[in-house]
Formats: sequence, structure tokens, C-alpha cells
Amino acid sequence: MTEQCDVVIDNVRIASMQKNGKAYGLLSQSSVAVKNGKVLAIFDVSQGSYQCKQRFDGENKWLLPGFIDCHTHLVYGGNRANEFEQRLQGKSYTQIALQGGGILGTVHATREASEQTLLTSAIKRAARLAEEGVTCIEVKSGYGLDMHTEVKMLKVAQQIAEHLPVNIVTTYLGAHTVPKEYRSNPDDYVQFICEQVIPVVAKQKLANCVDVFCESIGFSPAQCRKIFAAAKTHELNVKAHVEQLSDLKGAKLAAEFGALSVDHIEYLDPKDIPAIKHSGTVAVLLPGAFYYLSETQKPPVAELRANGVPIAIATDLNPGSSPIASILTIMNMASVLFGLTPEEVLYGVTAHAAKALGLTNKGQIKEGLDADLCLWDIEHPAELVYGINQHRPESKWFAGKGC
Amino acid sequence: MTEQCDVVIDNVRIASMQKNGKAYGLLSQSSVAVKNGKVLAIFDVSQGSYQCKQRFDGENKWLLPGFIDCHTHLVYGGNRANEFEQRLQGKSYTQIALQGGGILGTVHATREASEQTLLTSAIKRAARLAEEGVTCIEVKSGYGLDMHTEVKMLKVAQQIAEHLPVNIVTTYLGAHTVPKEYRSNPDDYVQFICEQVIPVVAKQKLANCVDVFCESIGFSPAQCRKIFAAAKTHELNVKAHVEQLSDLKGAKLAAEFGALSVDHIEYLDPKDIPAIKHSGTVAVLLPGAFYYLSETQKPPVAELRANGVPIAIATDLNPGSSPIASILTIMNMASVLFGLTPEEVLYGVTAHAAKALGLTNKGQIKEGLDADLCLWDIEHPAELVYGINQHRPESKWFAGKGC
Ligand SMILES: [Zn+2]
Ligand SMILES: [Zn+2]
Repeated sequence: MTEQCDVVIDNVRIASMQKNGKAYGLLSQSSVAVKNGKVLAIFDVSQGSYQCKQRFDGENKWLLPGFIDCHTHLVYGGNRANEFEQRLQGKSYTQIALQGGGILGTVHATREASEQTLLTSAIKRAARLAEEGVTCIEVKSGYGLDMHTEVKMLKVAQQIAEHLPVNIVTTYLGAHTVPKEYRSNPDDYVQFICEQVIPVVAKQKLANCVDVFCESIGFSPAQCRKIFAAAKTHELNVKAHVEQLSDLKGAKLAAEFGALSVDHIEYLDPKDIPAIKHSGTVAVLLPGAFYYLSETQKPPVAELRANGVPIAIATDLNPGSSPIASILTIMNMASVLFGLTPEEVLYGVTAHAAKALGLTNKGQIKEGLDADLCLWDIEHPAELVYGINQHRPESKWFAGKGC
Repeated sequence: MTEQCDVVIDNVRIASMQKNGKAYGLLSQSSVAVKNGKVLAIFDVSQGSYQCKQRFDGENKWLLPGFIDCHTHLVYGGNRANEFEQRLQGKSYTQIALQGGGILGTVHATREASEQTLLTSAIKRAARLAEEGVTCIEVKSGYGLDMHTEVKMLKVAQQIAEHLPVNIVTTYLGAHTVPKEYRSNPDDYVQFICEQVIPVVAKQKLANCVDVFCESIGFSPAQCRKIFAAAKTHELNVKAHVEQLSDLKGAKLAAEFGALSVDHIEYLDPKDIPAIKHSGTVAVLLPGAFYYLSETQKPPVAELRANGVPIAIATDLNPGSSPIASILTIMNMASVLFGLTPEEVLYGVTAHAAKALGLTNKGQIKEGLDADLCLWDIEHPAELVYGINQHRPESKWFAGKGC
């Protein structure tokens, strides 16, 4: 133990979020040594310690992995407050769509916005998440749809990491909606995605994943199959928005392609759960959209649980159905609206969220993994889920550096 | 206009929350002069200006009154995360109550807690509200029930104002629940409230208001009537938790005593609304508890609106039914869950919230009123309601001082 390290955090209770048979992956040790951005060791001071440049007294507070928000659309132009207000004043969705509102309104605003404007607003949203202990954020494209704007969105997303202590994981979601220029021939748009955009995304490393919105108002399973195949050809991972509003068997299709995650899944048929389990796919629940759209059909939580499918939770931060820049709020909603236990919720924003992004180096406090750590002044981890906005990390380390 | 003032805020769009026939009380002027903690004048620079010690460029952002959270129980000992977790693990309310949980658990923890412990945790919660633009908070007692602890709670609440840029308005809520020492003779507890505590509260100026929980599991209308009468005798204002779980006609009773507000009112019979209107009582809606308890009965918003009853919104921040330390979240819930328009919501946390507390010097940007002001980097006030946690005040003045 004479090894030199960068920082030792002493006197903490560690909710490691490992799967060690203890609630919240509780560890008996109370010190963490960090070196080169990774956790070097988890140990007890009584058994010796490490030489280090800095020593931090955790005062018996709780140390958790930084949270991972594994499903967001937080790069976008404009906002939809105007539509929100009009709906509450009694206007119908149809009237609003006819005025150029809805998702195509956001597409228009995102195409018009400069890279700098998009970046500034995205940083502001990501900062709200980071303040609450988020150290890794997935960001999807999908409000550009054309080549230029999708590339712009993905580049903006990647740049967020230069401004905040977070990792950004990007996902290409060309199949978010059919752009107006392809309205009469959506199959041509799918072909454009597969043959034009996916190769560029892969070659320029703009994204790790390809995502789709598989829904009657989005893309058909047949169209999604083509997109998944193209993604796989270019060695990109697959994710899918499925079974949010109806059961099109999108989850089963995604599982066939070894999808990292199937997201929303309120209408998932429990019969399809074994297929998801078999493919190692994570079920990502998005209670924010459920809340915001006043939905009533809940995802099949009991059956996911019974089948041992890993469940993740995310904000789905987006301008239309979940303008909610708060992982802590979403965590509470996952319990209150979907009945997840606080422990399930915390796995959902740590270990399981990492899995939903294909990250093996994050989401747990474990030797060798990234030292993205938050210290919370609480008596028990369940407190982070039980309320809304009651807590902030007392201290935070991103890649081992205090921030 | 040669008058000297403390600060001039130029170049702002002013949502004054006055009732001037314009949405959000929009004013055409774009400068505000502040002197001695009050708004001295609202004017246009083109017509001359004021001599001032400090000039602030608002960069065309929106200036709103500081928010007022007119119903909280944010002083308490312990928390109920443990019960929350047990319920999600499948334990019943009865099992939890038998273990000493529920409100009596909080009473126990609050009696045990030192003044300093209570203050530290209360400041932390109030700080969360203040960060979001709240400059005035009502705080109720009601987790002590005995003389000593109720007095302790009210003193702690008043002390919050020494630590944060907020005004605190206190309310004595002895009639929150029957303490265990009076379990077999609740009428004796009511007598204790009326004859022992209310005189002390009034004499020591510990609270401005007396509140009750009028419900089958709380206090009967007959008991509440006695408490209201005692409050009035000691020149204290009256507020009431009514019609949250059933219709006991508590709102009508409260109106008879000229209550400042009736709060919750999900089960209010629309026939009783004219009585509330007539007494000038504010309807305080608490969507946080509705959400947290998974209630389905919504307050009669359309009828309140039709009758011109002023509607306020509050967090109800408390450990059992609304552990939500976020006015911005509650504002969104008021629209999403109860269908209030963004404009109604903003009146609900400004002008109408002031009225619910009997404050004539707050809740609007108006000459002579307190200069509690927040500057928001938004394009339209509806944006503050449309999302959750997207915004923070860019600048804030409390009693005219930047903070
Ligand atoms: Zn999404
Ligand atoms: Zn209350």
C-alpha cells in the first residue's frame, strides 16, 4: 500500500451499486483511493493506507457513483412553451400542428439555430443535470433529420463535455419523425438514413448508437429493421423507442438485433420480455413523458422484475413530451408513478444506465472503473428517491478530479 | 426624477403580476428604480431616469416578482424515506403506522430534535426554494403538538430569515393531528390549543395565522370552529386544510371566519364556492400532495375560475405527503395535473400567494411594494411553467438588495 495515488476519500459509507447481495451494493470498507481518474482501491484505513496528494474526509456521508442519464434529447432549438400554454388555454393538438407546432416546429427551430446557440442552451440544460450529480449523459440527434443538421446536433452534443464535468454519449436518431421533405415517400427517407447518414455517422464517429421511434406515428417495424441492419453493418449499437403508445412488437425486433436498450415500453406485452432478457437488453423507463403526457398505461414493471431484466431510468429530456431537466425528479417519479423501489431506481441511474449505454467502465464504485463519484449528506440512499429536489451532492469527483 | 435611489434595473420586460388587463400584468415600461427596499418607480429611460448608486442592465430579460410559497411544513425532524421504501417494497400503511411511522413518527423526531438540528435542515430545504426564485415562505408548525415543541418550531421557522434572503410567515397548526397523549380525549386537546397555546402564540407573535386539518382523520368541523373562534379572539388570521380527502364543508366553515385561504380542496363542492368568493378567501392548490399520494380527485378548477376565486399554488413541502422542495416542479404540476394555465400558475405563486398570506406589500412589481425581484433568461413567462428545473433566476433582489 505504498503506491502513490491522487486522492483518498476516507470515512464514507459506500453504496457501490455493485451486485454483491447487499442493498445498494453496500461495501463494508470506508475509504476509496483514486489514481489516474480510476478507482484504484476500496479499503479500510485500519489496514493501512495509500500515499496521496490529497486526503478528503467524507464525514460518514454516503458515496455513490455519479448518475448516468441514459436517454435525453437535450440539444434542440427553441422550446414549446407557447404550445403548452395554448393547449392549457383549450387549443387542440390538431390546431397546434396546423400552426407548424409539435416536433416539426422543433425541427424547424433546430435547423435554423446556429451551432453556438444550440450549444449554449444545451450546456444550460446539461448543467441542471450535472448539479444533481449526473456525470454522464446520453444525447440523441433527431431534430435535424437532414444530413447537415443531424451532424451539427451530434457535434454540439459532443462539445458539451468540453464545458462541464460530464461524459457525453451520442446516439443518431434520424428515425425520430419523417421530415416534411419526405412526407410523401417515407421509405425514401429510411433509405437516406441507411445509405447516406449512417455511414457518415460511423466514419466520423459522431455517435455510438442508432436509435429509432418505432410507432404508428413514427416508423414501422419493417422500416426499423432496415435501419438496425444498416447500423449493424457499420458496427454501431442499436437502441429503440418502442411500445410507448401501442404494441408494434418493436422491443422484440430490437432484441433480435441485440439492442442495448428498449425505451418507454408502456405497452410491452409481457410475453415479449423473455426475448429482451435473452438479448441482454436493458429496459429504459421514462416516467417524465408518462407524467407530462398524462398517460395511464404503465410499463410491466412486475414482469420485468420477475424476469430479471435490468431496468434503467432516464429523464428523456426533450422539448415536447418531457421538458424536465432533473434526474432527481425523474427518480422520484419512477417510484411514485411506476412503483419501482428506491434501490431499483438507484440501479436505474447507475449500473443499469451504464449497461443501457454499453459502458463497462461506469455506474459502479469498483476497482478499475472511472472515479465519477458523488458524496451525499444523507442518512440512507433511499432519501435521494423519496423526495424531490431536497439534496445536492456535497462533493463531486469527475474522472477522479474534484469538481 | 432627480431623486436618488439605490439601484435602477434597466432594459427588462416586466411581468408585474398586477391585474392590468394584460397577460401576466405586462407593463410597457422597461426600467425599475428601487429605494429603501421598495419599488420607487417603474418608468422608461427615454423619459429621464433616476440618480442611483448602481445601474443594472437587464439585457431584455424578464423581471418577475419573487415567488411566494404560501403553504409549507418545512421545519421537521427526521424524514420518512424509510417508510417510503417500505411501502414500495409492499408494506401496508397499517403495518407502517404500527411501527410508529406516519405523522406521529415525525412528531416524535421533531420533539427529539434540537433547535439547531431543526434549523439546519430547514435552512437546507428553504435554500432549495430560494435558489428557484422564492423570496417569501410560509411555514407551519404542527409536528410538536405540545407547547414546548410548537413554540420551538415557530421560532426555528422565524430564524430561517436570518440565514437566507427570504421573508418567513409563520402559522400555528396545532390542529394537525391529535398527539398520542390526548388520543383518548381529543376534545381536551382542542381545549389545550384554544386556551393554552393560541394565547401564547398571539402574545409572543410567534405566528400570524392559525391553521387546522379539517378531516375525518384530523379534526371535526365542530372542533375547527372552536379553534377558529379562539384565533379570532386573539386577532390571528385563519387558514384551513379542507376537503382534501372528503367533503366535510370545512371550506364553508373557514369562509365564515373570513379565512385567508382554504387549502387542498380536491373534494370541495362547487356549491360552496360562492361562499369562499364572498369572504375573499384564496383557494390554495397543492398538486404535490395529489401527485405523491397518487390521488385522482382533482380540485374544481373550472368552477373556481368561473367564480373568480383567486387561486394560489404551493409546495406543501412536508415529510409525509409532499417532500418536494421545488416551487418550479409544483408550478409545472399545477398545469399538467390540474390544468391551470401558465398565467394562472404564475399568479398563483405571486399576487395570489401574497393574498393567501394577507400580505399587501408583496407578489407584484408595483410602486411602493417590496422590491423582491427575479430576472429570468427566458423568452416568455410561460417557459417557467412549461418545463421542470430548466431555469434559475439570473439575478435576484431581496428587499432591493442583490442576492
Ligand atoms: Zn426519447
Ligand atoms: Zn399542508
